[in-house]
Amino acid sequence: MIERYSTPEMKSHFSEDSRFNYLLKVEIAVAKIQSKMKIIPKKAAVDIEKKAKINLKRILEIEESTKHDVIAFVSQIAETVGGNGKYIHFGLTSSDVLDTALSLQISEALQIILNEIQDLKKTLKKIILTHKKSICAGRTHGIFAEITSFGFKMAGFLSELNRNENKIKLAQKEFRICKLSGAVGTSSALPVVFEEKVAKLLNLTVESFATQVVPRDRHAQVMMSLAFLASGLERLAIELRHLQRSEVSEVIEGFSKGQKGSSAMPHKKNPISAENITGLARLVKGYAWTAMENIPLWHERDISHSSNERVIFQDAMTVNHYMIRRMKSLLENIYIDTDRMEQNTNLLGGVLYSSHLLLHLVEHHGLSREQSYKLIQTAALNLKPGQHLKTEIKKSKELKKYFTDQDLKNLFSGEKHKKAIESRFAKYQKEVF
Amino acid sequence: MIERYSTPEMKSHFSEDSRFNYLLKVEIAVAKIQSKMKIIPKKAAVDIEKKAKINLKRILEIEESTKHDVIAFVSQIAETVGGNGKYIHFGLTSSDVLDTALSLQISEALQIILNEIQDLKKTLKKIILTHKKSICAGRTHGIFAEITSFGFKMAGFLSELNRNENKIKLAQKEFRICKLSGAVGTSSALPVVFEEKVAKLLNLTVESFATQVVPRDRHAQVMMSLAFLASGLERLAIELRHLQRSEVSEVIEGFSKGQKGSSAMPHKKNPISAENITGLARLVKGYAWTAMENIPLWHERDISHSSNERVIFQDAMTVNHYMIRRMKSLLENIYIDTDRMEQNTNLLGGVLYSSHLLLHLVEHHGLSREQSYKLIQTAALNLKPGQHLKTEIKKSKELKKYFTDQDLKNLFSGEKHKKAIESRFAKYQKEVF
Amino acid sequence: MIERYSTPEMKSHFSEDSRFNYLLKVEIAVAKIQSKMKIIPKKAAVDIEKKAKINLKRILEIEESTKHDVIAFVSQIAETVGGNGKYIHFGLTSSDVLDTALSLQISEALQIILNEIQDLKKTLKKIILTHKKSICAGRTHGIFAEITSFGFKMAGFLSELNRNENKIKLAQKEFRICKLSGAVGTSSALPVVFEEKVAKLLNLTVESFATQVVPRDRHAQVMMSLAFLASGLERLAIELRHLQRSEVSEVIEGFSKGQKGSSAMPHKKNPISAENITGLARLVKGYAWTAMENIPLWHERDISHSSNERVIFQDAMTVNHYMIRRMKSLLENIYIDTDRMEQNTNLLGGVLYSSHLLLHLVEHHGLSREQSYKLIQTAALNLKPGQHLKTEIKKSKELKKYFTDQDLKNLFSGEKHKKAIESRFAKYQKEVF
Amino acid sequence: MIERYSTPEMKSHFSEDSRFNYLLKVEIAVAKIQSKMKIIPKKAAVDIEKKAKINLKRILEIEESTKHDVIAFVSQIAETVGGNGKYIHFGLTSSDVLDTALSLQISEALQIILNEIQDLKKTLKKIILTHKKSICAGRTHGIFAEITSFGFKMAGFLSELNRNENKIKLAQKEFRICKLSGAVGTSSALPVVFEEKVAKLLNLTVESFATQVVPRDRHAQVMMSLAFLASGLERLAIELRHLQRSEVSEVIEGFSKGQKGSSAMPHKKNPISAENITGLARLVKGYAWTAMENIPLWHERDISHSSNERVIFQDAMTVNHYMIRRMKSLLENIYIDTDRMEQNTNLLGGVLYSSHLLLHLVEHHGLSREQSYKLIQTAALNLKPGQHLKTEIKKSKELKKYFTDQDLKNLFSGEKHKKAIESRFAKYQKEVF
Repeated sequence: MIERYSTPEMKSHFSEDSRFNYLLKVEIAVAKIQSKMKIIPKKAAVDIEKKAKINLKRILEIEESTKHDVIAFVSQIAETVGGNGKYIHFGLTSSDVLDTALSLQISEALQIILNEIQDLKKTLKKIILTHKKSICAGRTHGIFAEITSFGFKMAGFLSELNRNENKIKLAQKEFRICKLSGAVGTSSALPVVFEEKVAKLLNLTVESFATQVVPRDRHAQVMMSLAFLASGLERLAIELRHLQRSEVSEVIEGFSKGQKGSSAMPHKKNPISAENITGLARLVKGYAWTAMENIPLWHERDISHSSNERVIFQDAMTVNHYMIRRMKSLLENIYIDTDRMEQNTNLLGGVLYSSHLLLHLVEHHGLSREQSYKLIQTAALNLKPGQHLKTEIKKSKELKKYFTDQDLKNLFSGEKHKKAIESRFAKYQKEVF
Repeated sequence: MIERYSTPEMKSHFSEDSRFNYLLKVEIAVAKIQSKMKIIPKKAAVDIEKKAKINLKRILEIEESTKHDVIAFVSQIAETVGGNGKYIHFGLTSSDVLDTALSLQISEALQIILNEIQDLKKTLKKIILTHKKSICAGRTHGIFAEITSFGFKMAGFLSELNRNENKIKLAQKEFRICKLSGAVGTSSALPVVFEEKVAKLLNLTVESFATQVVPRDRHAQVMMSLAFLASGLERLAIELRHLQRSEVSEVIEGFSKGQKGSSAMPHKKNPISAENITGLARLVKGYAWTAMENIPLWHERDISHSSNERVIFQDAMTVNHYMIRRMKSLLENIYIDTDRMEQNTNLLGGVLYSSHLLLHLVEHHGLSREQSYKLIQTAALNLKPGQHLKTEIKKSKELKKYFTDQDLKNLFSGEKHKKAIESRFAKYQKEVF
Repeated sequence: MIERYSTPEMKSHFSEDSRFNYLLKVEIAVAKIQSKMKIIPKKAAVDIEKKAKINLKRILEIEESTKHDVIAFVSQIAETVGGNGKYIHFGLTSSDVLDTALSLQISEALQIILNEIQDLKKTLKKIILTHKKSICAGRTHGIFAEITSFGFKMAGFLSELNRNENKIKLAQKEFRICKLSGAVGTSSALPVVFEEKVAKLLNLTVESFATQVVPRDRHAQVMMSLAFLASGLERLAIELRHLQRSEVSEVIEGFSKGQKGSSAMPHKKNPISAENITGLARLVKGYAWTAMENIPLWHERDISHSSNERVIFQDAMTVNHYMIRRMKSLLENIYIDTDRMEQNTNLLGGVLYSSHLLLHLVEHHGLSREQSYKLIQTAALNLKPGQHLKTEIKKSKELKKYFTDQDLKNLFSGEKHKKAIESRFAKYQKEVF
Repeated sequence: MIERYSTPEMKSHFSEDSRFNYLLKVEIAVAKIQSKMKIIPKKAAVDIEKKAKINLKRILEIEESTKHDVIAFVSQIAETVGGNGKYIHFGLTSSDVLDTALSLQISEALQIILNEIQDLKKTLKKIILTHKKSICAGRTHGIFAEITSFGFKMAGFLSELNRNENKIKLAQKEFRICKLSGAVGTSSALPVVFEEKVAKLLNLTVESFATQVVPRDRHAQVMMSLAFLASGLERLAIELRHLQRSEVSEVIEGFSKGQKGSSAMPHKKNPISAENITGLARLVKGYAWTAMENIPLWHERDISHSSNERVIFQDAMTVNHYMIRRMKSLLENIYIDTDRMEQNTNLLGGVLYSSHLLLHLVEHHGLSREQSYKLIQTAALNLKPGQHLKTEIKKSKELKKYFTDQDLKNLFSGEKHKKAIESRFAKYQKEVF
């Protein structure tokens, strides 16, 4: 049950009531244009707009016998409209209304997600600005690589978030589709211009060569954009889980008063929000996969997509909305231990600085890359627990001649890295902020 | 929202109340064994079994502050037990109870599915027996291949269903796991024999080398068995959709009074149940995929699986249960048009019999396979609309010498195929029934 | 083995030789800029550009001992350059060169695919223009729905192909990335402006906040765009397979002289190209899924993506290239049986026209939709084999009063549909052509 | 290209030559039985067995014109047999031979994998026995949880490997299928008993109700068993990557002389084998997914599965074989730093022992679980860097009264955990070894 991840916004947006109101919105637009085009009486459109009211209970009653929810819906609102009710849904096939309404509903749901992303981006930006110069270990293969900063790390995640936001915006734009071209998309019942006018009224684009429905690659694109967003959140969540491991301890997820980490182990502060987000990303990817399999419908469409679309849209968007919000809250309450970050850079005897020692030999003493590599590798791999490269270099016959005390101080200070990071921010911050 | 596919059985089986009752069942078994082993007072076990009652509202209240649902649950039932409440959950970690309870809950949910499969098998068997000899076209590549019978077709689906049933049974067996070995699976808090005794009491098998949890490949196996079941139903659903297409019309999904097929096209009888099942299979496969990604948890486990397991188990089982039931109902109400089946075998001039014409040339006239192939292929591909192979052979100089009238009558009667089918049923029916 | 689908273009593009030449291209660009920036001697860049030559055998020899292919590559080309060889790869980390070269290689592979798409589009457009007015049955749920035209059908596929082409173009654009910011993306070894200049020289965009590598969501986007393309081809292939089924026979895949369809059944002409494409689409989607799982690399990257990227890029692109080419060839040699299409529209007694009969009652006789629906549905569902709606309406007491002979002639002519289709082409052809 | 992961065994097993030899093996068995049953002359079977020889070049020549590889194969071997060559493939359809041969080829490929698993298991068992008592930190959520041992950890992976081995064995057993029942599985051309006898000769089971082919759920089961195996290896690989991170350093992947970890950072020893395996697991899962989508073939089969099966079987098995072998080699050369493991257990002030401190309060001093939890949690969360729980308890007014010096010595010794672990091994080692 996705319910446990239901946010108030998504719950309301995907209620049955909301769904039928999107259908109604389309029927009203249709009636307006049809009356302007004199396809139905002027009074009919006025009545439909004024009097049509959704009655869920009554729809279900009618559906009981018709086994067709759109027909039930049309009949029900026709009842509330009275005599002119017969002009509702004039010349349309169910999918005309269903898919055009879905287009409105989903594109607006994407807007809820886009809004939430704005909030998350604000939180991320604040952390980036605060921690631009918070030096910490960069790790490749999980192994110390070189100095980076926490703000720099987070800027990479912001950059990915921007890309995923753009994917969602594009999917949203390409999903704002009007499809009122009838049974098999040929406009055989109502003129082409009718659809065009309704599209304009609803601020949608016409599907030029539809089948009975809007082609399902558009729906898959929406779902895939959500999978990308979820994967980006997953990557950030995994980063935070790594940084919280006992041996690293560079960040700690907020721990509210009275909260318990484990029923057996009283000391635990676990990264449960980050783990929760990680697991939910797997769920969203599963939904997206289902959507991909909906693409090759048969002929002018079969209805196989419908049974799962009733689930995957609402569930994927609900979960995604929850994930963004939870990530934002995680980041707002995270404890970032900059002291620990700095300490960790000196673990393992300062090997984080080895690449710069190598460069020093090449640049300042004309050693070949090969030679320099071997010298520094030997020194680094021979370090014993408790030893530090800086000290060992001073003691080494082979190496000490290449390094003055000032050289070593500079090389192990991290200042060069901080400056480099600053220069990247100077150049590229604007691009991602 | 999976709710629309909720069967009463699954709804009740996966209610919050039900879930906590599985936890309670484990805690009671634990207390019983612990009292027998004198780890806790005799009276404590008696009190726990008698007095412990689930109070959902109270659990939620406590969870509000502890942010940990098992601790909230333990505290709540402790309240109902009174003084001896402190002996509940003695020496356990949350995952001990959660995973052992999940084992019970899921294996019993699988039983609900297995029971439903029995019903579906009964329906299938009835159809098979009725239509053993209902001759129809066999099609490969969607092209007429050779005669088969509708019952024979269905026996293939039954055979696949049996295999999938076995997969579920195996997954169920391998999922009946007890894990009470504490924080990281080492039994450091309670003796090995304690877990063994509880397992026996609950009719479960001990996870011999666990982490904090039951390893997630077992969960993935359950989900994958459901994906196979769904895929088998999908294959059957697609077969029925093909047979119902307008040009084939060999079966028709039941059409209840007042039902409408399309809001624009009054003539339509659509295979909506079969399409519904097809689409839901895609959903189940998505859930199974999520479960596969839960396998590589970190170290003695992280909790990333939990956020999606709250969704995928209930949703996949609910959908699967619904699918089986809907397939059964589809098959019970299906109209099988044996006349049309026979007519269709004569479409395209009897080419369905071409393989037997070839065999006739090889077996009775000693022609090479190559030669025979060319002769028959030429005849078949040169047929004009309205012509029939039987008649054209009689007219053909090249071919008529190989076939007496009796030969042709026999070869185009389908009798040989019926007999072959009978002989396969005679040999293998027992195996699949 | 993907080899069987290897096109000459892709085989050459993904050869080992080609791969190392992309690496070399990057190293040369790097050297040029570094010499301009006086980081390395002017002569060094000249030598590197002139003398550096790939020697695959020698690379493998060196890799034997270093177990690191980039280092082996750098050493090998350094050998060919001589004294100034030591300035190759100056200040870089392997991933700088690998990912920038991959960017070039993949974006150019996408161009091969984009070019092939152009050819396929030409073929499709030709068919569309020829068959704009080739009337045929539109089918929803596999059931006759309403008249459409074969050209109209194909226009829908062209429209989807355009969307997928755009996805690939966008992925290509977002993949043209330069990443020369060193070990953890901070530019600690070489100034920011160096990367910027190389990017410009290679016509790439700088990854502003990289880790050690270009983030893998970009790679997943490329792979997903290929999955969409494959899914679109799959939908078209499935359409053609449906239209070729024995009972439909509206198209036939080209059958070359001497070709055999089945070793047992001489009459068969099977849609094997369409089936081949269908199956390969499943393969491409599998590769894309692998790429999605590469997104959440650890920290400043782990190398887990690398082992599968060596497979999925080449294999997915090779298969996709093959699929497009095979689809084009399929379409060029397809037999489109417009007579049969027209005949099929009259199968089942003309029910394809039922929606227009309904509209007639509503528009010209003021019956309610409900009433009209019931009348037409009853007539359509009561048709016996061999009967035709047109004739039955004339005989029906209830219905004949609503239809003059001219009405019936018009309603069952398909003219209204043809006009509608023409009007859609008039409006939207330009948009998709 | 999967080639880079090709092991000699798999390369040879999946060569074109090997494939045609499996086909030949089936044709010979067929001829033998057919001669015994007097369907073909005795001499024919003798000739076929003796003289039939594969000639790849000639097969390709013939395929050029027939476009059908089985027919080309049959024609080619017929040429080598001479006059009696016409009795090859008598009464069969291509899929009879193809699927029965595939059954043999794949089940034997699975045997190669099963053999490799035996080797890996030996290596794992050796490590388990050596490190049964090598105490190390157990971690849940990546956070210190409780003491475990390295051998105990590995026993969990062995246990999972056993389960996956069983899945492969079961898939292998259920894949040893004979299908010689002709065009649509009805035995219309050859008697039921013929197939039964060939099955016996080849040590296979008959597919009782086939279509033209062996149903594809069997193939998906094989592929899924490989996905499970890959996922198990992935979990182990991820464990090793975690243990190798700089801050943990409990294991180190073997580092051969001259090997380089990074072209920029000389100090690096990276877990590249473990990362390689992790990435390949994603690939295998992708292939398995493709196989799942092959299940719902149309009617008596379409041929869409074929185009991807040519890739996924060979590639998935090749990669899996490589993964097992690489994992074995990784484990054989791994450096397990038991000193570091023990040191790490004392990181963070001995919080790993907190659960036992809690139990002590409950068991020996009758405090409630709640009370004890709060006391220990407070102590653990208030630890400052450099402090140790053991010392702080002695200083704490609130806590010291509950612990004698001997209590503390015992509680922080790990002895209790070692004993617990020993008792689990005593009970369950036999089960997994």
